[in-house]
Amino acid sequence: MLADRHDDRPSFMTNDQTTTTGDSGQRSANMQWGGRFAAGPAAIMQEINASIGFDQKLWRQDIRGSMAHAAMLAHVGIISGEDAQVIRSGLERIAAEIEEGQFTFSVALEDIHMNIEARLTERIGEAGKRLHTARSRNDQVATDFRLWIRDAIDGLDAQLADLMRALVARATDHAADPMPGFTHLQTAQPVTFGHHLLAYVEMLARDRGRLADARKRLNECPLGSAALAGTSFPIDRRMTAAALGFDRPTRNSLDAVSDRDFALEFLSAASISSMHLSRLAEEIVIWCSAPWRFVSLSDAYTTGSSIMPQKRNPDAAELVRAKVGRVMGDLIGLMTVMKGLPLAYAKDTQEDKEPVFDAAEAWTLSLAAMAGMVRDMTPNTDRMRFFAGSGFATATDLADYLVRALHLPFRTAHHVTGRLVAKAEAKGIDLAELSLEEMREEEPAIGEDVFSVLTVDASIASRRSEGGTAPENVAQQAAWWRDQLKETA
Amino acid sequence: MLADRHDDRPSFMTNDQTTTTGDSGQRSANMQWGGRFAAGPAAIMQEINASIGFDQKLWRQDIRGSMAHAAMLAHVGIISGEDAQVIRSGLERIAAEIEEGQFTFSVALEDIHMNIEARLTERIGEAGKRLHTARSRNDQVATDFRLWIRDAIDGLDAQLADLMRALVARATDHAADPMPGFTHLQTAQPVTFGHHLLAYVEMLARDRGRLADARKRLNECPLGSAALAGTSFPIDRRMTAAALGFDRPTRNSLDAVSDRDFALEFLSAASISSMHLSRLAEEIVIWCSAPWRFVSLSDAYTTGSSIMPQKRNPDAAELVRAKVGRVMGDLIGLMTVMKGLPLAYAKDTQEDKEPVFDAAEAWTLSLAAMAGMVRDMTPNTDRMRFFAGSGFATATDLADYLVRALHLPFRTAHHVTGRLVAKAEAKGIDLAELSLEEMREEEPAIGEDVFSVLTVDASIASRRSEGGTAPENVAQQAAWWRDQLKETA
Amino acid sequence: MLADRHDDRPSFMTNDQTTTTGDSGQRSANMQWGGRFAAGPAAIMQEINASIGFDQKLWRQDIRGSMAHAAMLAHVGIISGEDAQVIRSGLERIAAEIEEGQFTFSVALEDIHMNIEARLTERIGEAGKRLHTARSRNDQVATDFRLWIRDAIDGLDAQLADLMRALVARATDHAADPMPGFTHLQTAQPVTFGHHLLAYVEMLARDRGRLADARKRLNECPLGSAALAGTSFPIDRRMTAAALGFDRPTRNSLDAVSDRDFALEFLSAASISSMHLSRLAEEIVIWCSAPWRFVSLSDAYTTGSSIMPQKRNPDAAELVRAKVGRVMGDLIGLMTVMKGLPLAYAKDTQEDKEPVFDAAEAWTLSLAAMAGMVRDMTPNTDRMRFFAGSGFATATDLADYLVRALHLPFRTAHHVTGRLVAKAEAKGIDLAELSLEEMREEEPAIGEDVFSVLTVDASIASRRSEGGTAPENVAQQAAWWRDQLKETA
Amino acid sequence: MLADRHDDRPSFMTNDQTTTTGDSGQRSANMQWGGRFAAGPAAIMQEINASIGFDQKLWRQDIRGSMAHAAMLAHVGIISGEDAQVIRSGLERIAAEIEEGQFTFSVALEDIHMNIEARLTERIGEAGKRLHTARSRNDQVATDFRLWIRDAIDGLDAQLADLMRALVARATDHAADPMPGFTHLQTAQPVTFGHHLLAYVEMLARDRGRLADARKRLNECPLGSAALAGTSFPIDRRMTAAALGFDRPTRNSLDAVSDRDFALEFLSAASISSMHLSRLAEEIVIWCSAPWRFVSLSDAYTTGSSIMPQKRNPDAAELVRAKVGRVMGDLIGLMTVMKGLPLAYAKDTQEDKEPVFDAAEAWTLSLAAMAGMVRDMTPNTDRMRFFAGSGFATATDLADYLVRALHLPFRTAHHVTGRLVAKAEAKGIDLAELSLEEMREEEPAIGEDVFSVLTVDASIASRRSEGGTAPENVAQQAAWWRDQLKETA
Repeated sequence: MLADRHDDRPSFMTNDQTTTTGDSGQRSANMQWGGRFAAGPAAIMQEINASIGFDQKLWRQDIRGSMAHAAMLAHVGIISGEDAQVIRSGLERIAAEIEEGQFTFSVALEDIHMNIEARLTERIGEAGKRLHTARSRNDQVATDFRLWIRDAIDGLDAQLADLMRALVARATDHAADPMPGFTHLQTAQPVTFGHHLLAYVEMLARDRGRLADARKRLNECPLGSAALAGTSFPIDRRMTAAALGFDRPTRNSLDAVSDRDFALEFLSAASISSMHLSRLAEEIVIWCSAPWRFVSLSDAYTTGSSIMPQKRNPDAAELVRAKVGRVMGDLIGLMTVMKGLPLAYAKDTQEDKEPVFDAAEAWTLSLAAMAGMVRDMTPNTDRMRFFAGSGFATATDLADYLVRALHLPFRTAHHVTGRLVAKAEAKGIDLAELSLEEMREEEPAIGEDVFSVLTVDASIASRRSEGGTAPENVAQQAAWWRDQLKETA
Repeated sequence: MLADRHDDRPSFMTNDQTTTTGDSGQRSANMQWGGRFAAGPAAIMQEINASIGFDQKLWRQDIRGSMAHAAMLAHVGIISGEDAQVIRSGLERIAAEIEEGQFTFSVALEDIHMNIEARLTERIGEAGKRLHTARSRNDQVATDFRLWIRDAIDGLDAQLADLMRALVARATDHAADPMPGFTHLQTAQPVTFGHHLLAYVEMLARDRGRLADARKRLNECPLGSAALAGTSFPIDRRMTAAALGFDRPTRNSLDAVSDRDFALEFLSAASISSMHLSRLAEEIVIWCSAPWRFVSLSDAYTTGSSIMPQKRNPDAAELVRAKVGRVMGDLIGLMTVMKGLPLAYAKDTQEDKEPVFDAAEAWTLSLAAMAGMVRDMTPNTDRMRFFAGSGFATATDLADYLVRALHLPFRTAHHVTGRLVAKAEAKGIDLAELSLEEMREEEPAIGEDVFSVLTVDASIASRRSEGGTAPENVAQQAAWWRDQLKETA
Repeated sequence: MLADRHDDRPSFMTNDQTTTTGDSGQRSANMQWGGRFAAGPAAIMQEINASIGFDQKLWRQDIRGSMAHAAMLAHVGIISGEDAQVIRSGLERIAAEIEEGQFTFSVALEDIHMNIEARLTERIGEAGKRLHTARSRNDQVATDFRLWIRDAIDGLDAQLADLMRALVARATDHAADPMPGFTHLQTAQPVTFGHHLLAYVEMLARDRGRLADARKRLNECPLGSAALAGTSFPIDRRMTAAALGFDRPTRNSLDAVSDRDFALEFLSAASISSMHLSRLAEEIVIWCSAPWRFVSLSDAYTTGSSIMPQKRNPDAAELVRAKVGRVMGDLIGLMTVMKGLPLAYAKDTQEDKEPVFDAAEAWTLSLAAMAGMVRDMTPNTDRMRFFAGSGFATATDLADYLVRALHLPFRTAHHVTGRLVAKAEAKGIDLAELSLEEMREEEPAIGEDVFSVLTVDASIASRRSEGGTAPENVAQQAAWWRDQLKETA
Repeated sequence: MLADRHDDRPSFMTNDQTTTTGDSGQRSANMQWGGRFAAGPAAIMQEINASIGFDQKLWRQDIRGSMAHAAMLAHVGIISGEDAQVIRSGLERIAAEIEEGQFTFSVALEDIHMNIEARLTERIGEAGKRLHTARSRNDQVATDFRLWIRDAIDGLDAQLADLMRALVARATDHAADPMPGFTHLQTAQPVTFGHHLLAYVEMLARDRGRLADARKRLNECPLGSAALAGTSFPIDRRMTAAALGFDRPTRNSLDAVSDRDFALEFLSAASISSMHLSRLAEEIVIWCSAPWRFVSLSDAYTTGSSIMPQKRNPDAAELVRAKVGRVMGDLIGLMTVMKGLPLAYAKDTQEDKEPVFDAAEAWTLSLAAMAGMVRDMTPNTDRMRFFAGSGFATATDLADYLVRALHLPFRTAHHVTGRLVAKAEAKGIDLAELSLEEMREEEPAIGEDVFSVLTVDASIASRRSEGGTAPENVAQQAAWWRDQLKETA
């Protein structure tokens, strides 16, 4: 991550190739705040301090923010219209340089803000030195970072919708295909594969809701809070807020530069959603296992082995399952950074960006990989149906029959069914294979009609309660979701 | 936490006094699902499995849910109106027993649901056995737990509002009292004490927003999802949902019994808010320290020492600072539990309750303690003013003056100011103590009027930008918050 | 957890029955450090501050420590021998009271130290007031807590050894029984069930190593560090250290009262071991699933369902799988508490005990439950053998044959094998079912002897490299472990 | 981090400049395990799957391991001596290429192992294809990773020793300089600055102990475990283990390829040590604050402000304080990844490297920065002495005097002292400023000699108990540590 070899770092740390121009060797006083500083920073100081290695990711947002700030400064008369114009076109050229990979990032200039401002002044002279009027890096970085997260949210929301659509499409096709519903990974009751997939659609919908709420809450503009106390210049914060798409300026300058709860809320949403994805990923891994074979993945989503030629490993699913770890780690890391920090800005908060970048990256990869796998996988419906019908999966249907048809209290019905399951298990057969006579030994009032409730299809068809697994319910839910996802797309 | 001494546990674990009746020794087959089970569970199995030690906290919600369920069963004709009435009054009596401490919780009955249902049947006979028709413990516990969290949210929201009111009241009184604003805990610029306190009001307002969003999202009723697939009984889920104050039933039965994102969202909100409280707590600890003495706490919020008679320790502040640790631990613990769980219900989710109870307890204690401290603390305004005026706190004002009055570009003004600070520092004096001549050595155009910007009061008065620290801004903000908190109270 | 209802707590918090005598209502000045305090603490202050609700678990260690301290005070002449004797017998009587449940813990007395000291003085008068000479609660609690953790380590180490013995016994029986070895949960190569179980023995052995290292590192005695600076009394710290079984006194008084790395190291060891247990637990859950059925658990380690009478749920395994969440949460919680704490003692550290107690409890339960399950489970060796021989599990053996017998470079052999697997897969048969002719189409030099490497038994027998799965290796390893576990027991 | 823009990723993710050659566009079947694969992987699959972006850091270890493996293969006759020689010199040339930045890493080749092996075969032909005989990527990566961590441990251990030396040097100089000892950040008792610094030496010594234990435990060689089951080739694992500096081969092949507890143990040690550093960092931040000014840092370890010219911010200390967050996050992330993973190797474990690399980097930076700051900081001994003597810091000395000289029981002495403190506080004076008469109003037996215990120097000199703060103790401890650190250097 860091640029160059220093004597005070052990050699095992220095084997990276890096993209950042390593100019920390020069140790000259920093050009931006060097007025008072006699000596430059220690090499290790510069190394631990510089954020350009990761905050260069903010360059688009930084330039966007500076353009809005300059336009406002001119609008209220703090700088001339001409200066604003020169600044704008200077920033546009810098954007082009970065886009084209022509920009040289400097560690000595610490961060993306200084790198861009220094380059601007290099290019346009005096006007560049006026840009930082009435702002500070403290409000600048808070603004950039909110903009970045807002952009990330918009991209992730679209990916969540895409994965939901993939699931809804598969659920539509398999609304009536039975699979064993599990609790404790033990066969419980038959459900439909479509119903199972729609459960994840519900989770992802809530994930989107959390993102939307987070977006609304963070969409206030810190710019103009300056270092911590506001400024004596007659700035127009509503103008910059509007120009950057914020709903309003933040209300308290100390809060605006020092809190990072918006990043934590984003990381919480990322963690919860990654947890959801890990569950589906685990199911795919299990479904692909040899004893199970409920689904198979194509070569596009599996890998081979360097030693075992027959392997078709669901690596993508395993990686999605794993990603929740790092996302949670990112959340907890930043939460710990923020613990007990006095107001206002502290350098500790510089540790806010990497976890957010890392979590966004992990989440976006997971969503894309999962959408790919959902579209790719081939369900083995015969095998699912087979398991749905074995393992006494319709025992609950029997108990419900005893209540409904014979008016047994549920607890009594449950006990009778338990004894019948034990009897069948002892004989190595399933419930439907017991004779009526054998059933009547436990409960004499059982009628012939009992057998009609013991089939897989009868079982799933009967679960017509709202939210239940009956194929008609599932088809309806899938259709409703298709509609919903049309609207929001 | 657990009831009794077993041979397979080391003795260091067994020194608790507990409230739960330890009847695990009997090892008889469980009365509720024992139909098929020949032998009772191993002692350790019962011990690790039983949740009654902590889920008894859900008793109110469990009884509320059962009442709504019974009324609905009667309404749609699954049980008789008479049975429903007997069930209702039976549950009322059980509620009274628990309230009065007369109820004996049994470990052999595992959990609160079984404890109450068994007692109900003991009291009212057959009707009790009909209560569990068309539901399962899986949807029952999901319902109870959502109700509990919803109740907790309502209580915590009121506490957050109360703490905000306490802060706003102090901020109103100190809207114009200067204190040093810090960045990096170094004197940066003067702010007002009121402004500083209102920064926390902003944070707490967002904490309330997160709670409100979480409440809305969780307010769907899982009851009627049954074990995982819905039920074949003609239940009316809208009726139970409405009776329990839910906005609607959940849409997918598998999702309803297996996800716990609502608990994780609550824990995230708790963590973020606890982090905010830890920051104010840290400030109070520092403010109370001997070199600082910005505020003092009364005997009501400090403790003494067992060995040092002069101590007045801000223990409550320290504990509030610490609580974020356990709340985060609760969040991360449950997130890890949920990682990679296949659908639908798994016993792992039984680990959802203790972290939520623990976090809610820690949060509520912290809020109460913090509200008490905010009301209790005595600010030392003279001392704060003194530090606000030292340490070159008005250097930014000088730089801004150079821009505003002399039209220097900001970066140039910043450098000039840096040199003046260096000069003053070398002489051991503050900026305002430099002579005009000394100033002009660095920048000849500086005028007499420079001295008018170098006072603390001029500095804070000048920060009139929206959200800035000018006393009139702060007073206005405090008034606005008073209004807001009236409405929502 | 807390004693009584206060007006400043929301009602949802107050439905617990508690064991602690709630006397916080009295609000009198604390008797131990009340000399200077005019008013008693606020109710909420007492509530957040008191630790007696959980630190009563330390009573044995506190009494042991006080006895050693008193004996030392008498030995060096700080108190009389008579006083020491009176103190000792007073403490013995208090121990008996607590043991018998006759002791009334008081919230107003805050913690276990004050509760015991106050009761001592109540019983024996003046001598009791001399006990606290030359110590402070700061060194006292650090001593008690180390003693408690040391006791916990000893118990947990014995449990780890017990679980290892259970695994080794099963491994001995199944040293030669094949099962499919998985990577990515895909059939990879045959291994033996015994080999698989011994993998966990290795993990647990390292877990014990971590505990042993932690024990050695924490086994230094803080007593005599007093509040933070040591004491002017001529105490003999080596005497108390020896009396309490410590290797030596701690070297620096500030460090001794303020660090809690020993608790964190214990929690790290607990987390890693719980992670190991979660892996075996996950395997048991999967092995018990219907498509798999590699093992079954008896009624003693499974539970039924409140609605599905046929279920046999591996609840204990699921709970063990889940426990790593809370243990990790405990670790991270305390780590966060300790982050950034200035020396020396801070009240924040009071948050050290509950996570340690909780993690120790979770770990001990998990170990006991896992040992029970390992002894209880019935492996289905036929089914494991069947899966070991399907899914091209011996493809690697074929590739190795091509290298060994035909001298193909490994990468080439790997490719040839890949093509043969593809050919067999296309025909829906296994590798051994291909004709020699079909094989020779891909590699003409293949001989008749190829078939001898394609059986499960040949495969496992061939893995004779050190640590490999050959039955003779596994039997040897199991025997070695039996020896090891004899020695250390 | 990732190479190229894909249509299925939102654009906010694609603004990085990267070092890795992005060749994922080609989507050809992977050359290493492509025998069976008809189609290449999906672009997103390759992207989520490839680890070359980070595991290139292992190149030195990978080459070292391959050299040892090839030498062993030749020794036991699996490959020819000539092949081994060609492989060795091929690997040497590759090492040179990487060292010089001439090596092109390919995403299509997934990881460092494939990249190097493919390049080797490109260079040396057939012999290269023989290298992977009798090993798998599973044991290869486990070996590489252990080697990397072992190297990291050695570097970090040296850094810990260096920081300890820096602290001991400062402690030696300030063994007798008083500072206020704090508990709860309240003035408690005078200690010496040297004593305070040596407390951190103790913590760091334990940190080294944890590293040493972790090193010993991980120092077993997985190479030869092959994919999971060992191998049928007659390899000599003791030879490779010895060649790579391992103490012995691992004992169980399944365990060897699937566990990552060694990485977790390293991360635990890193977290605990980072926590220690965060405490010292917090102290430096507070000590540098305006009201405190106990120490100052030079320009080499402080930064300025982009807006406030007078600032001298202790950024390095703040960053060290913050780093514990990410290190803990790394730990918790990997722990969560490992939770519930079935044996043997799973792709999830690919997530093991980035947290370890990140934590090692954070830790090494923190240690270097902290050593720099400790050597750089200038203590303000006058100011520390002033605060050491105010705030009733010698109240404990008074209480101890009452016990020692007047034989009051300690609790009684404590009360008397409390009343005297209250009296002095009410008069706004310190204890030593009370007249003997005023003292005698509370305790008539107090003598003139009382004043001799109330000075700072008397106080610290009296704390002669083992580990206490008396200057002679501190000097002795510092000397002892100098000796210790000589031996281990």
